[in-house]
Amino acid sequence: MIKTDILIIGAGPTGLFTVFEAGLLKLKCHLIDALPQPGGQCSEIYPKKPIYDIPAFPEILAGHLVDNLMEQIKPFEAGFTLGERAETLDKQEDGSFIITTNKGTKHHAPVVVIAGGLGSFEPRKPLIPNIVNFEDKGVNYFIKDPEVYRNKKVVIAGGGDSALDWAIFLADVASEVSLVHRRNEFRGALDSVEKAAELAKLGKIQLYTEAEVVAISGEEKLNAVTIKHNDQEKGETILEVDNFIPLFGLSPKLGPIGDWGLEIEKNAIKVNNAKDYQTNIPGVFAIGDVNTYEGKLKLILSGFHEAAVMCQFAYQIINPGKRYVMKYTTVGGVEGFDGSKKEAKKEVVQSILA
Amino acid sequence: MIKTDILIIGAGPTGLFTVFEAGLLKLKCHLIDALPQPGGQCSEIYPKKPIYDIPAFPEILAGHLVDNLMEQIKPFEAGFTLGERAETLDKQEDGSFIITTNKGTKHHAPVVVIAGGLGSFEPRKPLIPNIVNFEDKGVNYFIKDPEVYRNKKVVIAGGGDSALDWAIFLADVASEVSLVHRRNEFRGALDSVEKAAELAKLGKIQLYTEAEVVAISGEEKLNAVTIKHNDQEKGETILEVDNFIPLFGLSPKLGPIGDWGLEIEKNAIKVNNAKDYQTNIPGVFAIGDVNTYEGKLKLILSGFHEAAVMCQFAYQIINPGKRYVMKYTTVGGVEGFDGSKKEAKKEVVQSILA
Ligand SMILES: Cc1cc2nc3c(=O)[nH]c(=O)nc-3n(C[C@H](O)[C@H](O)[C@H](O)COP(=O)(O)OP(=O)(O)OC[C@H]3O[C@@H](n4cnc5c(N)ncnc54)[C@H](O)[C@@H]3O)c2cc1C
Ligand SMILES: Cc1cc2nc3c(=O)[nH]c(=O)nc-3n(C[C@H](O)[C@H](O)[C@H](O)COP(=O)(O)OP(=O)(O)OC[C@H]3O[C@@H](n4cnc5c(N)ncnc54)[C@H](O)[C@@H]3O)c2cc1C
Repeated sequence: MIKTDILIIGAGPTGLFTVFEAGLLKLKCHLIDALPQPGGQCSEIYPKKPIYDIPAFPEILAGHLVDNLMEQIKPFEAGFTLGERAETLDKQEDGSFIITTNKGTKHHAPVVVIAGGLGSFEPRKPLIPNIVNFEDKGVNYFIKDPEVYRNKKVVIAGGGDSALDWAIFLADVASEVSLVHRRNEFRGALDSVEKAAELAKLGKIQLYTEAEVVAISGEEKLNAVTIKHNDQEKGETILEVDNFIPLFGLSPKLGPIGDWGLEIEKNAIKVNNAKDYQTNIPGVFAIGDVNTYEGKLKLILSGFHEAAVMCQFAYQIINPGKRYVMKYTTVGGVEGFDGSKKEAKKEVVQSILA
Repeated sequence: MIKTDILIIGAGPTGLFTVFEAGLLKLKCHLIDALPQPGGQCSEIYPKKPIYDIPAFPEILAGHLVDNLMEQIKPFEAGFTLGERAETLDKQEDGSFIITTNKGTKHHAPVVVIAGGLGSFEPRKPLIPNIVNFEDKGVNYFIKDPEVYRNKKVVIAGGGDSALDWAIFLADVASEVSLVHRRNEFRGALDSVEKAAELAKLGKIQLYTEAEVVAISGEEKLNAVTIKHNDQEKGETILEVDNFIPLFGLSPKLGPIGDWGLEIEKNAIKVNNAKDYQTNIPGVFAIGDVNTYEGKLKLILSGFHEAAVMCQFAYQIINPGKRYVMKYTTVGGVEGFDGSKKEAKKEVVQSILA
């Protein structure tokens, strides 16, 4: 059982910054995310695109925003349960909560913060009836660790940035990379499309366009995929492979959170924005894109403010009766749980004429 | 008469970021600040100190935060009335407002946003009865343009960072710089204290410690100050000077805003934080440190969020009946009023096999 002060569901920008605000209050956090990496939409949907409305960043790539947040929260040593979906919320007699993931990992905390954005990102799966039998046995919808594919024969399906970028990356890792796409045109950043075209010319990526993986087979593990060509004359191609990675994008689903007895409005969680961003379940807060209230803006900067306010109230639940006196970071510095300490240079009081 | 869409009182971080959020909604802003430079507390009190809790900045100097905000809002060409205090608010028949400063400058706008922080920064003045007669006639409490002091004889009074830093700076500009301080010890950044000590040794700064300016005199303009030494044996020194600059710090005063009929609580303005950060006067909003509500945090990041939310409602006042559909900056880009356009690189849709 993982124990922490604040259990955060969702490691998007809102969940990440919560770790920092909680850390200032000496509260420890643990985050759960269905994705294999932190950053939420910023990492998964548009890591290489610029954002212009993060305060005091005239421009920042979404991926860099996440990198910066990870650096900022480092002193507070948050725990992460990645690649797992928070499935159930069980309130204990003492008012605390146990959260269990789809893989059975259990977490225990007095305060739960849902920073689940548009929901848990679930892969869009190809319509191949027996695909579930091969999930994690050769079929993957995410690439967590590219080393898994070293010297393997890999088929990637998809026509967007993820499919292009991973095909390019794995061309140097896997022994064989095939890229299958239903259309002739790919949609992605110009340099990705050009790089993939170059690798295709060099034979480092095998291209199958206007084609689709329609069947997969194997014994214990996947060992072949069947590619059907639009052009009937070409018929079908059967490839012997170790891995099939369909990258058809992810769609967020509020999912299990919808069944926890929370007040839901417009596919988001109602909170008390006049005060603490608490939900109708005391001890459960909702911040960032996942919540709703009059005037709500689904912007990154809103999640930051909501996180800061919410932590003050979480503090009162975790330390009943104790009063927290806020200190500016400039004045009080930042003391990490890892023993690190950042602080402004102290002023000196010194006579000038020795 | 200066006309604008949103008149902002206070050019601290909150007021500055409002220009950006308003700009995204195609609304123009004008800012009034009692200080000669933008940035509020960050510029005036701790420009060289690090802040650690600006989201996605593990560390940023307060002065750099202001620089970044100024760069971010540049495309939206805000107007500035600096060095003037907003004195009166007059509601017009059509619901719009006229704001007049202590120097008589008039501003007209349909929406007023008070981002006045802890109040208008007013200099702490030395207790010299006739000092008011020489204000702007040799006596200055702020240094707006150091060139004013070129080849002048200048007396600075004070023992903190401002006094030290301006004495150091003017040592190269003025023909004579004297620094008067009641104590022997100065309080400031180590390098400022050391640099001032060095210049004192070189005779480029004349030091008078354990001493105080007790009288000033002149005809049309200031031409002498009387320095009284604690050490009675030393008695008094009379210096012929062009300028006397007492830098005893600034203290913020809610000031005239307190008389505008706004609901005040804990020396701050009550707003409807459940919705739009509007005050009890329709069309007048209050954001940042100057407002109050349950759970309010006087933090920079709070002002940023409040600005974004508030602008949406200001839009409805300025464009009644029109619906604004928010677009992510990443998707819609940022179109400046200066004709500039920032936007993410477009994706290409392109076939790989030529
Ligand atoms: C193309 C695009 C451009 C954008 N541009 C801008 C912009 O310019 N400015 C701006 O401010 N915003 C922009 N946004 C919106 C911004 O990305 C979101 O506001 C922000 O990501 C919200 O952060 P969050 O942490 O609340 O949620 P998210 O980033 O959505 O993160 C939520 C995380 O929670 C996880 N999760 C949810 N439920 C569960 C569960 N049950 N178990 C485990 N994990 C779960 C999800 O997998 C996800 O990783 C843009 C969004 C997109 C898609
Ligand atoms: C030493 C110190 C350290 C701090 N550290 C941190 C930190 O680490 N993190 C953090 O988030 N915050 C910190 N703060 C607080 C932070 O600086 C404030 O929250 C922030 O400056 C508020 O911004 P604002 O724009 O709302 O108001 P301000 O910065 O106060 O600006 C308000 C402006 O309005 C002007 N004004 C007011 N009334 C009038 C009028 N009638 N006419 C004309 N002008 C007027 C004032 O002159 C002023 O320039 C710190 C503050 C101090 C003093």
